Amino acid sequence: MAQQGLSEHELRAWRVSFEMLELLRTRIEQHLQASAGLSNADYTVLAVLSEAPEGRMRIYELGRTAGWEKSRLHHQLTRMTKRGLIARERCGSRGMDAVITPEGLAAIKAAAPSHAQEVRRLFIDRLTPEELDRFAAISGTILDGLRQADKAAD
Amino acid sequence: MAQQGLSEHELRAWRVSFEMLELLRTRIEQHLQASAGLSNADYTVLAVLSEAPEGRMRIYELGRTAGWEKSRLHHQLTRMTKRGLIARERCGSRGMDAVITPEGLAAIKAAAPSHAQEVRRLFIDRLTPEELDRFAAISGTILDGLRQADKAAD
Repeated sequence: MAQQGLSEHELRAWRVSFEMLELLRTRIEQHLQASAGLSNADYTVLAVLSEAPEGRMRIYELGRTAGWEKSRLHHQLTRMTKRGLIARERCGSRGMDAVITPEGLAAIKAAAPSHAQEVRRLFIDRLTPEELDRFAAISGTILDGLRQADKAAD
Repeated sequence: MAQQGLSEHELRAWRVSFEMLELLRTRIEQHLQASAGLSNADYTVLAVLSEAPEGRMRIYELGRTAGWEKSRLHHQLTRMTKRGLIARERCGSRGMDAVITPEGLAAIKAAAPSHAQEVRRLFIDRLTPEELDRFAAISGTILDGLRQADKAAD
């Protein structure tokens, strides 16, 4: 069935792009789960916090970075807190911080090399350097648009 | 923390690409859920079956198309069967088919126009025609690699 509102050409472009992104994230997550017991979402939170000053960030800010709604963010951080990967701490009178724990830091340090190898195998090494740069540039354009749409909806 | 095994340049390219794909699929799914009560996975199954001859496909084939493992495929189809969107039917002596039901067909017909609009808003219209073609071509290259890796692992 042709989707209304998209030409055949646009629909084909969308489908190959969407299939790729679904399969890529599935394979990356399967590898992370098998090698380190982490989901893509776990890895994202740990990576962001491990690079933040003092390993901490406002929860609100973390949610914006990841693009998650409040309830998804809450459930994600609750699971990670229970597993000891992060902690939530009150920060001043207004906000809550998420803080990476020593266990969380150890988890991402242990997971990173094998994860990077898998990213290389499934993504980086499949492309020429020029294709990689083009893909990243176009991804940046799409990402900017998504973030603008998020802001407009705030 | 720099990931071992990737240069700074490669890591940046991966991160913007991964952030984009995570956020894009999240936004597309939120829209599908809100407008039609469907997940990305539901929509994929309905789209694939609605275009297959007689609206049916071997379950094994469907799993390969979607790139899902057996257990994920099983849970997905069980949920959709309970909701009446698809049915599972024995086909000959060997295999099982997934078949789209009239309810499933009605669901995707109802969802498609608004979904296409959202795809246009968040993806197609953000890119020049040349960027769209490049992005789709590179996505195809990555997808081919993922499928080859799947075959090699079979």
